[in-house]
Amino acid sequence: MTPPTDAELAEIAQQLRVDSVRVAAAAGSGHPSSSMSAAELTAVLFARHLRHDFERPEHPGNDRFILSKGHASPLLYATYKAVGLVDDDELRTFRTLGSRLEGHPTPRALPWVEVATGSLGQGLPVGVGMALAGKRLERVGYRVWVLCGDSELAEGSVWEAAEHAGHEHLDNLTAIVDVNRLGQRGPTRHGHDLDAYARRFQAFGWHTVECDGHDVRDVDRAYAEARSTLGQPTAILARTLKGKGVAAAEDREGLHGKPLKQPEEAVEELGGVRNLRIEVQQPPAARVLHAVRSGHLDLPRFEVGDEVATRSAYGQAVAALGSARGDVVALDGEVSDSTKSELFAKEHPERFFECYIAEQQMVAAATGLAARGFVPYASTFAAFLTRAHDFLRMAAISDMDIKLVGSHAGVSIGQDGPSQMGLEDLAMMRALHGSAVLYPCDANQTAHLVAALAERPGIGYLRTTRGETPVIYGPEERFPIGGSKVLRSSDEDRVTIVAAGVTVREALDAADQLAQAGIAARVIDLYSVKPVDTATLQEAADRTGCLVTVEDHRVEGGIGDAVLEAFSDGRPVPRFVRLAVGHMPGSATPGEQLRSAGIDAASVAAAVRLLVEQAVVS
Amino acid sequence: MTPPTDAELAEIAQQLRVDSVRVAAAAGSGHPSSSMSAAELTAVLFARHLRHDFERPEHPGNDRFILSKGHASPLLYATYKAVGLVDDDELRTFRTLGSRLEGHPTPRALPWVEVATGSLGQGLPVGVGMALAGKRLERVGYRVWVLCGDSELAEGSVWEAAEHAGHEHLDNLTAIVDVNRLGQRGPTRHGHDLDAYARRFQAFGWHTVECDGHDVRDVDRAYAEARSTLGQPTAILARTLKGKGVAAAEDREGLHGKPLKQPEEAVEELGGVRNLRIEVQQPPAARVLHAVRSGHLDLPRFEVGDEVATRSAYGQAVAALGSARGDVVALDGEVSDSTKSELFAKEHPERFFECYIAEQQMVAAATGLAARGFVPYASTFAAFLTRAHDFLRMAAISDMDIKLVGSHAGVSIGQDGPSQMGLEDLAMMRALHGSAVLYPCDANQTAHLVAALAERPGIGYLRTTRGETPVIYGPEERFPIGGSKVLRSSDEDRVTIVAAGVTVREALDAADQLAQAGIAARVIDLYSVKPVDTATLQEAADRTGCLVTVEDHRVEGGIGDAVLEAFSDGRPVPRFVRLAVGHMPGSATPGEQLRSAGIDAASVAAAVRLLVEQAVVS
Repeated sequence: MTPPTDAELAEIAQQLRVDSVRVAAAAGSGHPSSSMSAAELTAVLFARHLRHDFERPEHPGNDRFILSKGHASPLLYATYKAVGLVDDDELRTFRTLGSRLEGHPTPRALPWVEVATGSLGQGLPVGVGMALAGKRLERVGYRVWVLCGDSELAEGSVWEAAEHAGHEHLDNLTAIVDVNRLGQRGPTRHGHDLDAYARRFQAFGWHTVECDGHDVRDVDRAYAEARSTLGQPTAILARTLKGKGVAAAEDREGLHGKPLKQPEEAVEELGGVRNLRIEVQQPPAARVLHAVRSGHLDLPRFEVGDEVATRSAYGQAVAALGSARGDVVALDGEVSDSTKSELFAKEHPERFFECYIAEQQMVAAATGLAARGFVPYASTFAAFLTRAHDFLRMAAISDMDIKLVGSHAGVSIGQDGPSQMGLEDLAMMRALHGSAVLYPCDANQTAHLVAALAERPGIGYLRTTRGETPVIYGPEERFPIGGSKVLRSSDEDRVTIVAAGVTVREALDAADQLAQAGIAARVIDLYSVKPVDTATLQEAADRTGCLVTVEDHRVEGGIGDAVLEAFSDGRPVPRFVRLAVGHMPGSATPGEQLRSAGIDAASVAAAVRLLVEQAVVS
Repeated sequence: MTPPTDAELAEIAQQLRVDSVRVAAAAGSGHPSSSMSAAELTAVLFARHLRHDFERPEHPGNDRFILSKGHASPLLYATYKAVGLVDDDELRTFRTLGSRLEGHPTPRALPWVEVATGSLGQGLPVGVGMALAGKRLERVGYRVWVLCGDSELAEGSVWEAAEHAGHEHLDNLTAIVDVNRLGQRGPTRHGHDLDAYARRFQAFGWHTVECDGHDVRDVDRAYAEARSTLGQPTAILARTLKGKGVAAAEDREGLHGKPLKQPEEAVEELGGVRNLRIEVQQPPAARVLHAVRSGHLDLPRFEVGDEVATRSAYGQAVAALGSARGDVVALDGEVSDSTKSELFAKEHPERFFECYIAEQQMVAAATGLAARGFVPYASTFAAFLTRAHDFLRMAAISDMDIKLVGSHAGVSIGQDGPSQMGLEDLAMMRALHGSAVLYPCDANQTAHLVAALAERPGIGYLRTTRGETPVIYGPEERFPIGGSKVLRSSDEDRVTIVAAGVTVREALDAADQLAQAGIAARVIDLYSVKPVDTATLQEAADRTGCLVTVEDHRVEGGIGDAVLEAFSDGRPVPRFVRLAVGHMPGSATPGEQLRSAGIDAASVAAAVRLLVEQAVVS
């Protein structure tokens, strides 16, 4: 094939504009003007620099393209048309029910989309994860190209990514910044001051190239310079105009996210509808470094009766999992000595990614690694995972298989105080679409759940505890995700206590105290907070009539709410009381913290007594 | 008073080290080594540059000091001792139950702490908010001094803050970076390369000064330079050693967050216990610019039967509130034309803060403004507030009075797709300690709730809708926080439908359909999702026996869970069914979205029929 001439490229760019205008006009919504500014950037990239076999999205040598400014989806879909992936009829389904061409692109709908975008400032962080995968693990020469808006450079996550990429010398990564000067509601901070952006990227160790984003030759030069730059990632800063090519829209405020008012005239002004094709270069042959699997998973085993922190069990288990599976990787936010992911780092240093104190970047890198087929476990304090909430939300939209591990959950951490306590993490993680939320109480359970997460698609969350807890299960016990364990049970049970993690011990102690007072209590270890073991909870409710839930978490969104999901189908609902952290804790010992929060054994026993008496009276 | 000599300052620094070692030793936990690196930085600041009347924390001329590296609380408390605020006995209560001297400082416990810290990378962003308040609103010459760790500069939020401060030319703001080279688990990315940090800050428009952080004269020079720098914020990059002064700890890895092993020897090595005092300079007399209150709040009024988007009502109401109260300010994340905070910006430009696409910084600036006594309303898409989750969590720990407004909630936004839909925001906001969570269904209700939030302490959240909804309440109707409205009610009610926001219309339509089928349904508008109207829900349950909740939010953590809170005290629980968004939406019209999610009127009516039949059968 003959590569297109500059004149042909300019024509292709006009076609992308025309089709962007047309799809938004057909949909009655969308972002044509944000698409039009980047038409040359995309045309030149796809026609001259991207190497990608679109018939084989799984080709290991394929370059990766991320549209970080996901609202410019009309441009992406117009490009897909030029590449021959979608036709004009499908383009017209843009933003309609059932269409693959969603308002913002998602990999769920389209095989060529690497990751869902639409929350700004996320494409580059995820691209860093992919570039790391390519360079450090796959060792394939693919490049990662990320098309960013200028507005989104205000997001701190972009600078976490810049720092990560600069420090890792990711010369296989290129950020293409469409500096069109206009955000949604008006001008950006820096307008067309390309140097302002260049200074920032350079400070973080990047090579920068400035160019005229509407001059195909200049754009081509910039891409060539990016490809030939070694030892540094490159940021291309392209001066562009929003709405370029249509006088009524070009460089004008107030038109963000709106179809052009007179689309037919605009198409005319842009030279009319075309059907030019882009021939994308094939990637070079690439050998996949098959991830080594020993085939044998040698999970750590703990003695019943020993006291072991579940965070330690996590570290040992994920290290063992890493030995069995070469596709397992771990990431941490500079607290690996606390989360115990350091045990993985020690055994598998080449597959451990230190993300420093940058939780957004940690989750984004995990997402990028998952997009490349790896199975990432990303850990930090449960409290600090809230920092990455929006990245987790987007990972759920991407349907990514990533595992999060939050240590130091709850008030039971003790003296460090509320800033370090994960008290809202279960609420956050449960609300993510398709997530699994696991909260083990002992070391053997933890080890099995770490392994189980690797086999389960979607977002998986493991909540671990700082202090030691007694090993109550033997190493052969099994813990399916979605299950629970009934730890105490008799025909005389008058109440069910539902606990998980650090409160299991409290529940068992309470049951012992209650037994001495003649009250038989069933105890359920609800280690799988989501999905929840509906059958066991319903049976316990049928048999015992009332429930007490006890959790080291806020009242809202945690174990109490999870338990009630089991009764959301219109069936009779047991009476219930929930014990959770209702106050703002300060510093204190772990035992004092549980007592102050009213989630220790004595509080559980007292709540049970009240509930049982109430049930008798009524 | 005679200012201390350099030699005396060096002695004071040693005292701060000694006391840091002693408090951590007494507590058996804490971060002495991270305190020791910053002893001179703190001693020189408090003795020579800070201007603060500690007997009058409310003095408007007081400089502000934020310990962003909150784990160095031993240093802060040691400094308080030197200033004469706490005594040796109280120091020994560090990290014990009931002590004001928590593991990480909070304003809840101590009047001199501006904001809770302990989640890294938050002190500087909040400091920017305070510096903005001083410069743009209070117009008092106080300075804001923020002591940061080097590790925390990896957080993107720091660079959002750097961008904000640089762009606003906040020369009343100084970041003091304690570059001790060691993070928690090992060396930082840049070690002692001060230039690396300087390049970054300079790129964002800051003046930088490098200094030897253990040379009091050099530190003094740096502070003087910061104070005399005009038009730019200053970052002081101080080369320090973690554990400085004790050979067994100095510059050593593996000692983060641990008391020194031989504290008595360490104290000896540091020259022994001292009782030197720091005389802090008084602030200059400062006049408070009293916020103007018109005294009359002229809320917008909407006609019953009109169709108005609640986001529009928000914009009008907050603008009116701003006219009535000079202490009300608004912030937005570059989407003010969508959230409608642009209406506030237009009427009160001097009190509007454009934060561009940097949601962490927006919430942090709101926190800083609230710390200075203003009443901030910060708005963006509900989905993007997840970006600031950790800042919201810390604001709750600080007990700050900030108002958040999340627009474009739920699938009802339509075509833009899941990345733009707030579907987890209620779960996030409900789990914050002390929060109020409001979700109005019409314009008059919105206006009243906007005003009500201003009067309520703590974090307040208002969830608004993109599309128009019918005005169903007159402008005189009242909506107390914690209340609800019973919209349909009769003695024959066999079921209660609980809705809020966009589903209220669906619930009413469903009730109409059901009435035609002979099923009387009570309808409750649960506009106050937290606190929830327990009495009305309990009465409805008593009368109707069963409940259906319907919400444009994920199943977890939203309205369904809020309703069940009303029955968490052991009382009989009604049968219930919850309708919520269980799938991953794509693009579609708003109506199609509600239908696909099963939260439209037809779905509600169908669920009610099933539930009522079930109740009859059983």
